[in-house]
Amino acid sequence: MIRFSPLARSARAALLSIPAALGLVSFALAQPFDAADLDVARELREQALASDLAYEITADLTTRVGNRLAGSENDARAVEWAVEMFESMGFDRVWTEPATFPYWTRETERVSIVAPTEQELVAIALGFSPATPDGGVEAEVVMFDDLDDFEAASPDSVEGRIVFIRSRMERARDGSGYGPAVQKRARGSVVGAEKGAAAVVIRSVGTSTDRFAHTGMMRFTAGSRLVPAAAISNPDADQLERLMTGDAAVRMRVEIEASVNETYTSRNVIAQIDGAADPESIDAPIVAIGAHLDSWDVGTGALDDAAGVGIVTAAARLIMEHADEHGARPDRSIQVILFAAEEIGLWGGRAWADAHGDEVERYLVASESDFGAGRIYAMTARVADEAMPVIEAIQAELAPLGVESVERGGGAGPDFTPMLARGLAAVRLRQDGSKYFDYHHTENDTLDKVDPEAMKQNVAAFAVFTWLAAQSPVGFGSGPELLD
Amino acid sequence: MIRFSPLARSARAALLSIPAALGLVSFALAQPFDAADLDVARELREQALASDLAYEITADLTTRVGNRLAGSENDARAVEWAVEMFESMGFDRVWTEPATFPYWTRETERVSIVAPTEQELVAIALGFSPATPDGGVEAEVVMFDDLDDFEAASPDSVEGRIVFIRSRMERARDGSGYGPAVQKRARGSVVGAEKGAAAVVIRSVGTSTDRFAHTGMMRFTAGSRLVPAAAISNPDADQLERLMTGDAAVRMRVEIEASVNETYTSRNVIAQIDGAADPESIDAPIVAIGAHLDSWDVGTGALDDAAGVGIVTAAARLIMEHADEHGARPDRSIQVILFAAEEIGLWGGRAWADAHGDEVERYLVASESDFGAGRIYAMTARVADEAMPVIEAIQAELAPLGVESVERGGGAGPDFTPMLARGLAAVRLRQDGSKYFDYHHTENDTLDKVDPEAMKQNVAAFAVFTWLAAQSPVGFGSGPELLD
Repeated sequence: MIRFSPLARSARAALLSIPAALGLVSFALAQPFDAADLDVARELREQALASDLAYEITADLTTRVGNRLAGSENDARAVEWAVEMFESMGFDRVWTEPATFPYWTRETERVSIVAPTEQELVAIALGFSPATPDGGVEAEVVMFDDLDDFEAASPDSVEGRIVFIRSRMERARDGSGYGPAVQKRARGSVVGAEKGAAAVVIRSVGTSTDRFAHTGMMRFTAGSRLVPAAAISNPDADQLERLMTGDAAVRMRVEIEASVNETYTSRNVIAQIDGAADPESIDAPIVAIGAHLDSWDVGTGALDDAAGVGIVTAAARLIMEHADEHGARPDRSIQVILFAAEEIGLWGGRAWADAHGDEVERYLVASESDFGAGRIYAMTARVADEAMPVIEAIQAELAPLGVESVERGGGAGPDFTPMLARGLAAVRLRQDGSKYFDYHHTENDTLDKVDPEAMKQNVAAFAVFTWLAAQSPVGFGSGPELLD
Repeated sequence: MIRFSPLARSARAALLSIPAALGLVSFALAQPFDAADLDVARELREQALASDLAYEITADLTTRVGNRLAGSENDARAVEWAVEMFESMGFDRVWTEPATFPYWTRETERVSIVAPTEQELVAIALGFSPATPDGGVEAEVVMFDDLDDFEAASPDSVEGRIVFIRSRMERARDGSGYGPAVQKRARGSVVGAEKGAAAVVIRSVGTSTDRFAHTGMMRFTAGSRLVPAAAISNPDADQLERLMTGDAAVRMRVEIEASVNETYTSRNVIAQIDGAADPESIDAPIVAIGAHLDSWDVGTGALDDAAGVGIVTAAARLIMEHADEHGARPDRSIQVILFAAEEIGLWGGRAWADAHGDEVERYLVASESDFGAGRIYAMTARVADEAMPVIEAIQAELAPLGVESVERGGGAGPDFTPMLARGLAAVRLRQDGSKYFDYHHTENDTLDKVDPEAMKQNVAAFAVFTWLAAQSPVGFGSGPELLD
């Protein structure tokens, strides 16, 4: 059953690179996969498009566990749920690995306009915001267009005041509006502390015009001074802007009860399909697909990232079922890794990279699903040159699903980032995120926001990618040389 | 300037009814309006479509006052706002009239699933819900398909339990899904008390799949026993349904702090454009358009009903401006009536009917805007037979705005209902309410939900209707005989 030993793989890679080096044919003309493997890929694609499994997994996690903030009681419940789920599915191996981190507990938050009239706003404290003093802070509001504008302000104009940063996020299929918009969330509190602000209130990072406030982590280093920080929903930010352009001074009150806690140890939960190559060997190669198990503490983390849990688990399960029925095990092992504590600082991904960093070459390639359940429309690959024919051949099998193109670069998803720094080869199946930031990190991220049909397409793409990656005649270049 | 005295009006009405009675021509062939009046109607229509006034009024009320629950401090602020707004616009007369009612104050509400896992739900207490005992009530949940199912249940299956009623509202352009769906909100608490339930929790009456809970009044008579009652959002109701279909018993906790208070006196705020007919005369006829000034205490009551306030005020203001510029006063007086305390029991409308019931004949016809700001697509008329040619002629002038048809029957809007019982002639400009119940009575009813372009169309329709009604050669039949 072993069709490509590591040795054979290297030999084929060398062969494949010759025509390209001579400029005789493009990479895309080579078909690196065996016909039998392509047949399996196509069967998996069709089976995935007919399967509700990912949705069922997503529904089960979000219904039976609900939200699952890292360090909370539900974090432990989610780990238990994941282990039971993997075991019930009959994966060859299921285990957990520790991830230890400081955690944060939200009690309450309340943000109100108190002058010129009293108005309660829809608000949410940002992750790791310090609490306000008892009774909250009340002060005049000073408004800035964006973080740059705030950073340029003289401390005199800010000191003792509540800072409001009003910049908006732009909607985009690839979610590219998030990066610029999230700066004020990441840095507002630190800048506020530097300038002596009483608190920082930001317009939610998010594209919804519904009245949901968007939480998420702040970026700071140990020992950074922070001021209490919260986001208000887009309609509330609009309201505040209108009041700020009036004649009367606007005053607000911010009350946050929250605490940063000593360390908690959660678990990355891992399931493996043993490959046909000796799975006991320390060198047995692995294709890794992942998602994160934790969520924010509002909503039920359906899109972020129960959907990813459903998608990668269902893809692996379909491959396993196919193997069981046809006796066709994948050549390489496949791991499904459900990471802990992604939201509050990639702690699961960091622990995994720490534990497995010296095995980076074993991890042929990795890909995470952590962008909701929108349809996949493109792929990116951060792989060695010699793997590009394989990547292009995979994309060709994904094209019937609407995966239109492949570009080099990109990553493997947030939780693989720490391992990316060690040279992990990475593929990303890029999802349509046009609506993702309508729900992401809000109370409104619930199961009904998952499109079951788009989810099937995601499973199909992951199943095809994962299967073919496990059958690839060449490696993808994981290792320090990929960093060059 | 007086073109139609009440006498002349009657004479023309008699004339107009002759051909119809003889069956010689249909009503629709008669053009009852003077060409000059039609010209004004068409000018008003164009001016309204170019005016932002209604939106500006809506923005000002919702921004400067915010929500305005009857009996709250903001109720008084809204009355003050309305008087100032009308006076600043130069209406001929501005005054207020009292409306007295018991009122209700919401403090907090919290509804949680406590078993099989702890999950906080998005919930809102229903209007006039009693408080729960300290610490709330916690009990096993029993689920019913709808109010009928609940009413048919034996008290044994309900006693001491928390009742969950899961029926959904259907989306419809004319809002017709609301009536059937609202029964569980209106009656659930009373039925719960009869059967000994600990509390009643309903799926929100509303069409949004976002996580907003929908409040609103319960229907009961003085002395009715009630149990604490709350609505949960549609996604939360879905979640609860999924848990209820599992193996484990589901328990919930309901905590509501709220109080019913002694009477408060708010004010209907009324502005008048004096008609060309002697406005001092006790018999001077009036066309009344209205909206309600109060709102629920969540959101800013933008669609319900600041939009209506903006629409009818802007329509009257445009007529007044036109009169000032061209010296063409309307024949009849026009009143804009902003009613108090609609949400908690039509108290403003009742007070107005009590105060003016014996003048019903003076009120030629009335129409309220209280269904958001969706485009008007049809009209209804509850008028005397002889007024139908006028109604059809008005509809013909509204047709270029997309007002496609007119039907007999209907009402004038909720606040005119008490006066309808005395024979008030009524017209309703029917708005597209497809999205209205996505926002209605929720935290998410905010200014950004108002479509400024659709609002202009509403103003145009109200301006044309109001102007032509004031110029009508016939009355609309207001009076006890309309009840026959």
